[in-house]
Amino acid sequence: MLKLYFTHKTRSGRVVWLLEELGLEYELVKLEFSKEGLKSEEHRKRHPLGRVPVLEDGDVTIFESGAIIDYILERHKNGGLKPAVDAPEFPYYLQWFHYVEGMIMPPINEIVVQTVLLPPERRSEDALNKALKLLAKAMKPVNEALEGKDYIVGDFSGADIMLGHAAFMANLSVPFGDDMPNLKAYVARIAARPAFDYAINLK
Amino acid sequence: MLKLYFTHKTRSGRVVWLLEELGLEYELVKLEFSKEGLKSEEHRKRHPLGRVPVLEDGDVTIFESGAIIDYILERHKNGGLKPAVDAPEFPYYLQWFHYVEGMIMPPINEIVVQTVLLPPERRSEDALNKALKLLAKAMKPVNEALEGKDYIVGDFSGADIMLGHAAFMANLSVPFGDDMPNLKAYVARIAARPAFDYAINLK
Repeated sequence: MLKLYFTHKTRSGRVVWLLEELGLEYELVKLEFSKEGLKSEEHRKRHPLGRVPVLEDGDVTIFESGAIIDYILERHKNGGLKPAVDAPEFPYYLQWFHYVEGMIMPPINEIVVQTVLLPPERRSEDALNKALKLLAKAMKPVNEALEGKDYIVGDFSGADIMLGHAAFMANLSVPFGDDMPNLKAYVARIAARPAFDYAINLK
Repeated sequence: MLKLYFTHKTRSGRVVWLLEELGLEYELVKLEFSKEGLKSEEHRKRHPLGRVPVLEDGDVTIFESGAIIDYILERHKNGGLKPAVDAPEFPYYLQWFHYVEGMIMPPINEIVVQTVLLPPERRSEDALNKALKLLAKAMKPVNEALEGKDYIVGDFSGADIMLGHAAFMANLSVPFGDDMPNLKAYVARIAARPAFDYAINLK
């Protein structure tokens, strides 16, 4: 059976969400942010930097949420969540899937570092403001691409698992305002999906 | 014919490299970092943030280097550069492909910001040191994974297009030392490939 290593408030929520959307069976192993959990020697054998998600599937152990999502869709169940190579949606599915880690997550990571992870005396207002500006810049094309659409490419897809999770996180840092109406509606649409709601609230 | 929008010293070099490795025909459009080039209204119709690479293929226009590489391998020519879904290399191909933008490029971007893009008076030594530390941390698992191997997954693959380009860039910022012997050899191996040499020196 698929075995997923999970920690609350990390990208491992994306994989739980996907598995729930697909209705696949899996075993969940919850790890704490601690020396006995994520940072243990045992977990470092699965991910050398002590991170999640990690997926085990028989002899296979892989990390990186984007890789795991593509792996599950390709090897286990498509569920209509990844367009065929010759489908018109295919290139844009790839584009937005990769846009998430390429453009959206770097400023979100920096915002989390500057508002949560660093002790107050080591935080930099300059770095925080730069990240907030970068994030707004990265989200604008997404808001435009969502014009007149419920999801980023055709029906709900694996690209929304990546993008919806990132947009939800971005909205927690700085709620989307009236200048981003499509993103605001998109986050509400994502949050209303039972599988997402389950994954994001899992502790 | 495939049409690639390209700027020297950007991720668009990855796509030139792939196209050269595959021996595909393509048209190259060179854009400068300027208001008339990358940041022109015309180019913003192709990429809303005025970035490269952008690939045009008939009616299709897509951005994000990772997406473009997968698109070319899936729709145009595999050339043995992407393992089949049921191949044992497939999960690790995905893992390292995604690791590049997820883990390696964020600190490289910050290093470029702090050493090249920002005017000296706005640079932060703290931010630079943090990024250098993060980059070293992100490269360590790559050095370990390369133990006894010429390429990151089986023979040379699309994952090396992403990783080799990033490792070459990382090595420009801080040359890999004797603590990273496998990465040092890997960068030399990548640099010796004629297609890479052509792509990285294209101006």
